[in-house]
Amino acid sequence: MVRLMGDCFDIDLPVIDEDIARPARDIRARIRAGEDTGPSRGKAVGFLQCNLVILPKGDAPDFMRYCLRNHRACPLLDVGDPGDFVPHRLAPKADIRTDVSRYAVFRRGRRGDDRTDIGDLWRDDLVCFYIGSGITFDGALNDAGVQTSRYRWVVRTDRPTHGAGAFHGPLVATMRWLTPAEAVAAVTVTRRYPRNHGAPIHLGDPAGIGADLANPLFGGEVPTLPEGLIPVFWACGVTPQSAALSAEVDFMITHAPAHSFITDIPAKALES
Amino acid sequence: MVRLMGDCFDIDLPVIDEDIARPARDIRARIRAGEDTGPSRGKAVGFLQCNLVILPKGDAPDFMRYCLRNHRACPLLDVGDPGDFVPHRLAPKADIRTDVSRYAVFRRGRRGDDRTDIGDLWRDDLVCFYIGSGITFDGALNDAGVQTSRYRWVVRTDRPTHGAGAFHGPLVATMRWLTPAEAVAAVTVTRRYPRNHGAPIHLGDPAGIGADLANPLFGGEVPTLPEGLIPVFWACGVTPQSAALSAEVDFMITHAPAHSFITDIPAKALES
Repeated sequence: MVRLMGDCFDIDLPVIDEDIARPARDIRARIRAGEDTGPSRGKAVGFLQCNLVILPKGDAPDFMRYCLRNHRACPLLDVGDPGDFVPHRLAPKADIRTDVSRYAVFRRGRRGDDRTDIGDLWRDDLVCFYIGSGITFDGALNDAGVQTSRYRWVVRTDRPTHGAGAFHGPLVATMRWLTPAEAVAAVTVTRRYPRNHGAPIHLGDPAGIGADLANPLFGGEVPTLPEGLIPVFWACGVTPQSAALSAEVDFMITHAPAHSFITDIPAKALES
Repeated sequence: MVRLMGDCFDIDLPVIDEDIARPARDIRARIRAGEDTGPSRGKAVGFLQCNLVILPKGDAPDFMRYCLRNHRACPLLDVGDPGDFVPHRLAPKADIRTDVSRYAVFRRGRRGDDRTDIGDLWRDDLVCFYIGSGITFDGALNDAGVQTSRYRWVVRTDRPTHGAGAFHGPLVATMRWLTPAEAVAAVTVTRRYPRNHGAPIHLGDPAGIGADLANPLFGGEVPTLPEGLIPVFWACGVTPQSAALSAEVDFMITHAPAHSFITDIPAKALES
């Protein structure tokens, strides 16, 4: 897909249309005003949502390399200049300090209290990483008859990622339980979103990737697999957070799980 | 395309097969021995070739951002750790200091004498950027009946790129003159190579992108367009070199134009 952005050619990010972007902007306005602090899933369906990682400038080069080397789990959509809190290419009127409904704040690898605003934590040396999210293709999955509302977890696997500097650790995966027909449709749909984790990395036996179903990171306790359903696994945007924690970075802010940043960009514009 | 690389999942880079990689390795051995100092075009056809940019560590974060923001012109395939001269994921037995047939060396924005070996210029703070190249899809174009041996130039355009730090400047394009049937086939083929500049950014009137046909950067003087041929333009890997020169970086090494780095990876493995 060839697009013009301003006068610049780019393959990935389209020109933002103010009218089309309105549903995303309306929700962000409510988030900024403190009227919506809930999860982003199910909101502005059909718009690109981003995983967010904010790190000090000194950690940025290695983290950028880490994302590049693990594109499947960490598809970088943009990286801000140090100190810049405006996601110019994803939502030029947004302010990343206020427009995510819930932030997780980490110091020396430990998560403190969540925030709904990080204005007072902002520093001139902070760099924003905007990373594709699988929430982005929920709309397309629903259109294809694939349910997205239940049977969904985030789990650790035993597969290592490619390290960069201090950043390393296992791949984290999103697991969904689907019918065979849904699984086929889900592969067909999600492979069209390479900038949002793309096609599944695995399906069937969780042991095939060492998925730790006993200790899910998100989604609650995993029950017995109902007959007729198949586990399907995607590389997950929690992977880079996990790597940053393994690196014991001094300071990191991320979106809280399931509270992603909603951009102005229609998900379909990123289809390939 | 899901692939395993070692135990790591990655969407872009396949496992390297020693036997399949032999033609690429044989040519690199000749280059390393000083027996081949010529252009890489037409050699190891069907293997991924890379544009190479080497910069000091201090310039790396901004240059990485520049590439990310101008993915069409600068599709990053990998970025080395500072001081690392082995392209682990592209050709793990190669040494980037000896295995390119000709290097261009720039100091404070000016090109000095070309080299066939940069061992004595190597420093522990140098970072290698491996960037996709349109030479990669020449084999696929030939297979589709598109000639690649003549009517090919590198030209400046008047389209700005997205800046990052000091890196900025116009998009540089590869122009090929093709028959209408070749042009259609060329779009069809090259769109499958998004990590190597992908589909054309323009076709038809060169003025549409302000292409400077009077002063081509490569390919010699541009004659009058023969009847029945159409100019077709791709984003070009000279763009990042141009941006680094605009930034007046103190020190930069690149491949010399048309002397790209030949990797172990079959081009078809990067098809999408």
